Amino acid sequence: MAQILRINCRTKEYSFEDVGPYVNLGGRALTSRLINKEVPADCHPLSAENKLVFATGLLGGSTAANSGRVSVGTKSPLTGGIKESNSGGLFAHKMPKMGLIAIVLEDKPAEDAPFSTLFITDGKVEFRDASDIVGLNTYPGHDKLLAEYGNKLCAAMIGPAGETVRKTATIQFTDPYKRPARSAGRGGTGAVMGSKKIKAIVLDPEFANKVSAADNDAFKAARSTWVEILKGHPVTAEGLPAFGTSVLVNVINEAGAMPTKNFRLGQCDHAADISGEKIAELIEARGGKTTEGCHAGCIIQCSQQYNDADGNYVSSGFEYETVWAFGANALIKDMDDIAALDRLCDEKGMDTIEIGNTVAIAMDGGIIPWGDGKAAIELLEKVGTGDPMGMIMGNGVTFAGGAFGVDRLPVVKNQSMPAYDPRAVKGVGVTYATTAMGADHTAGYGVTANVLGVGGTVDGHKKEGNIELSKNLQVATAAIDSMGFCLFVAFAVLDSENGVQTMADLVQSYTGNAFSVDDLVALGAGAMKDEQEFNERAGFTKMDDKLPRFFETDLLPPHDVVWDFDEDELQGAKV
Amino acid sequence: MAQILRINCRTKEYSFEDVGPYVNLGGRALTSRLINKEVPADCHPLSAENKLVFATGLLGGSTAANSGRVSVGTKSPLTGGIKESNSGGLFAHKMPKMGLIAIVLEDKPAEDAPFSTLFITDGKVEFRDASDIVGLNTYPGHDKLLAEYGNKLCAAMIGPAGETVRKTATIQFTDPYKRPARSAGRGGTGAVMGSKKIKAIVLDPEFANKVSAADNDAFKAARSTWVEILKGHPVTAEGLPAFGTSVLVNVINEAGAMPTKNFRLGQCDHAADISGEKIAELIEARGGKTTEGCHAGCIIQCSQQYNDADGNYVSSGFEYETVWAFGANALIKDMDDIAALDRLCDEKGMDTIEIGNTVAIAMDGGIIPWGDGKAAIELLEKVGTGDPMGMIMGNGVTFAGGAFGVDRLPVVKNQSMPAYDPRAVKGVGVTYATTAMGADHTAGYGVTANVLGVGGTVDGHKKEGNIELSKNLQVATAAIDSMGFCLFVAFAVLDSENGVQTMADLVQSYTGNAFSVDDLVALGAGAMKDEQEFNERAGFTKMDDKLPRFFETDLLPPHDVVWDFDEDELQGAKV
Repeated sequence: MAQILRINCRTKEYSFEDVGPYVNLGGRALTSRLINKEVPADCHPLSAENKLVFATGLLGGSTAANSGRVSVGTKSPLTGGIKESNSGGLFAHKMPKMGLIAIVLEDKPAEDAPFSTLFITDGKVEFRDASDIVGLNTYPGHDKLLAEYGNKLCAAMIGPAGETVRKTATIQFTDPYKRPARSAGRGGTGAVMGSKKIKAIVLDPEFANKVSAADNDAFKAARSTWVEILKGHPVTAEGLPAFGTSVLVNVINEAGAMPTKNFRLGQCDHAADISGEKIAELIEARGGKTTEGCHAGCIIQCSQQYNDADGNYVSSGFEYETVWAFGANALIKDMDDIAALDRLCDEKGMDTIEIGNTVAIAMDGGIIPWGDGKAAIELLEKVGTGDPMGMIMGNGVTFAGGAFGVDRLPVVKNQSMPAYDPRAVKGVGVTYATTAMGADHTAGYGVTANVLGVGGTVDGHKKEGNIELSKNLQVATAAIDSMGFCLFVAFAVLDSENGVQTMADLVQSYTGNAFSVDDLVALGAGAMKDEQEFNERAGFTKMDDKLPRFFETDLLPPHDVVWDFDEDELQGAKV
Repeated sequence: MAQILRINCRTKEYSFEDVGPYVNLGGRALTSRLINKEVPADCHPLSAENKLVFATGLLGGSTAANSGRVSVGTKSPLTGGIKESNSGGLFAHKMPKMGLIAIVLEDKPAEDAPFSTLFITDGKVEFRDASDIVGLNTYPGHDKLLAEYGNKLCAAMIGPAGETVRKTATIQFTDPYKRPARSAGRGGTGAVMGSKKIKAIVLDPEFANKVSAADNDAFKAARSTWVEILKGHPVTAEGLPAFGTSVLVNVINEAGAMPTKNFRLGQCDHAADISGEKIAELIEARGGKTTEGCHAGCIIQCSQQYNDADGNYVSSGFEYETVWAFGANALIKDMDDIAALDRLCDEKGMDTIEIGNTVAIAMDGGIIPWGDGKAAIELLEKVGTGDPMGMIMGNGVTFAGGAFGVDRLPVVKNQSMPAYDPRAVKGVGVTYATTAMGADHTAGYGVTANVLGVGGTVDGHKKEGNIELSKNLQVATAAIDSMGFCLFVAFAVLDSENGVQTMADLVQSYTGNAFSVDDLVALGAGAMKDEQEFNERAGFTKMDDKLPRFFETDLLPPHDVVWDFDEDELQGAKV
């Protein structure tokens, strides 16, 4: 039976425990329950009382397609509320093979303690000297780990942003191509890891048990149906593999919903220069890869490998939201600058959405000129160096707004908004406002029905139907995050008659525990309840479930829409 | 009848209005009512929707002793809640002589608009070119105003901290000695003035009407009784005039309640070097002044003039809290460094309490060494210059903690605590927790009964009686702030049989409106209600009425006391 590994980062003691009260939970449902039950809601996120949880989903370690996401949970240094941020990479599939459903980092050593690399193997945890990788960016740091641990390396690591406890700090995970290119991106989880003086976690490449489904025949049958569903939908089978997530640049821009110049406009003049189509063209011309998976078992393959003009690797996992943040919201036109910024964020270990928005705030505050990608790179190079400008930039939008005197801050719960203007895509706006995570499109992606016509159609310009849309998507998403699925499976599931049933079948046959569609819904709703409960104890109220006032007062061109939900209505989107 | 002057800082329009719904209010009761009724609670404090109110108390312009404080009200950039910060100086007495009970700055011009000096005269407001004083520190800026407007100058002005909208920015007022040495210190009121692009407000020195009491005989009688009361109490008649407020250094240190090294200890080894007695000795030896008043009509005279070793003026209005913040909490031993830091805060226009605590955070984060006054000066010189370190230091404790990675932050509602450790002086701790202002000793100074034996005795180490003590003091203080009195009159009033009645008599005879002791209490409670209401609408809950967790877990030496109120108990201190 899978165990929870608890590691005290001060005393260096550890224990492998039965899951106890956390039985039948996985992924986000597990991290959120554990944080809600064990972390004082009013503690400082960087204090010894906070915990950092890595959890695999209920399907972790299985061969079900697209089920290898790892959930990272903590009290967020960015929002002050609970946080679950999930990532691709190899970590989640490896954990169950080592008998682990969760790894919990607890306590913290003295401020001047050295950083360690945690090496986890069969029933044992070692705190290893990390002095050769401390201060390094994640790619060179990861290369050193590769040299030491070999090509089967499976690691989680922080960059200089995490070491210096920046509020935008990510945790980067080894991807299937031996790069630290997958991120638990949002909410500053990397800062919590940094506060505990852990630079990296390495899962022993040599140690792995065989994991098999409890009911192998039933699992195999469900797995085949599952592949058919994913392969049968135009988004997961065609759109995403062809152009990556940046296929959305033209789509969202045409919908007039692409936030531009710090959320002043809904369309970007140079959208064509940063579109998925353009990126695919550049990738092909330069010998990159237009498709790859972010984790083993992915059959959607929406990730890409972007090369520079000389054909050298620059970055991968180039999401629409990253391209949007630097390209449209900060008006940077040069795709190579945007790619360099994406790479820099991965190197420093920083959330591309929060950092892209922060660059826009620096431009709004007159620190650097609008659209100047080179100047943005120069600013961000300072993060993690001890330079005070780096302290500011690495702390995200609200912080930078306070430093630069900018009051136009597109944030909810201090987390900045992703690539969909809530005035024009109200379904996702409701999610921004009400999810416990702060502004987060992945918590309930109303873009589906508002723009893409997936799972029905709801007008994104009007209020009608969008509360319900967001609520349903939020519950479903929390379930998806708890099973370990990639969120993109939702596109196919929403338009499939037997999608949800198939997911439930997969869990039941893999775990051997009865698991119905109702259980699946309860799993998602339960995660949300834990999250809402934690935030309430931390002092959040319906006044925190709001968008900044400028969305109510400023019309968004070209459709001249505004945000017009009141705070009581919005509570309807919560469980 | 006194009027409210409203000035639109964008359109430059203005109007003199009857008080209308704000009749029978003054000082804090007026600013808090107006902010509560007119400012959207969820607006950004630096946005056009916020307002900045200057109000004189009900006794403003009168000859009642110690009644010349000016209240400044706004939504605070530091706390995000309502703020009233009051100050000495000449402003409050001058306003009624110009027929004004309040001046309200509204809206704001474009980001790149130039700063103006507002010149207010008989029925007229002029936006005058401020280019000769923009960017200047307050002393040289004020000297330029003196040269232009003459020795009867009565001004409010911001320094570079306010111009750059720092969260610690003060508004500095002309004192009786032609210096900009009196501050509306707390909560960043100067940043709101800066956001509205007003560098200074000058009340026409040549324009003043005669103001007289409605019932002059009754007023004169009450005024004499009032002087007797103030002159009859050892604190207001002896302790404060002899050694200034720093008389408290030895007192609070001996009580084991002087926060030392970022609130780690209750006693400071070098207390004798920074005591009121030591300061008085230095002042006398160097030809300074051990007593002066901060406003016309002051008979307590607790302010001082501190000179350097060569006999040159350095600073005045040298409060215990300033000496404590730099001296004990940041471990700076050299009184001349402390005096230079006080002057630097006045020059830049920054709150000495918030800035002193921020210096301690910089030391805790390893940015500068503990106790290094020269390094602190160097850091603070950067505020207002465009240097990112100045952006950080000028934004106070919570912000600097976020920049420097320090999680030991002695704040409530993001405002840092003054010079009394809440574990050892629980009466003031309850005030820190529950006042709408954020941690603020002046909102309900429980030190009286906890340490000084004024107004009875309540054990500051135990919980018993301290909720009630704080609540009663909070109501009384709000009333005092609304009449325009200096808070120090409370020492005498608390030990006087007819003190409260005499205050009510003064108001009734001066204004001509019936005003009983009950009305006085209702005035204070009403101000608190407005403040609590605003904060509730801004999203504050009982979870914001708490002290940081380290006060609950860390024993304070030498008495090894902790903070042990729970959040529901604490609600008892609110009206």
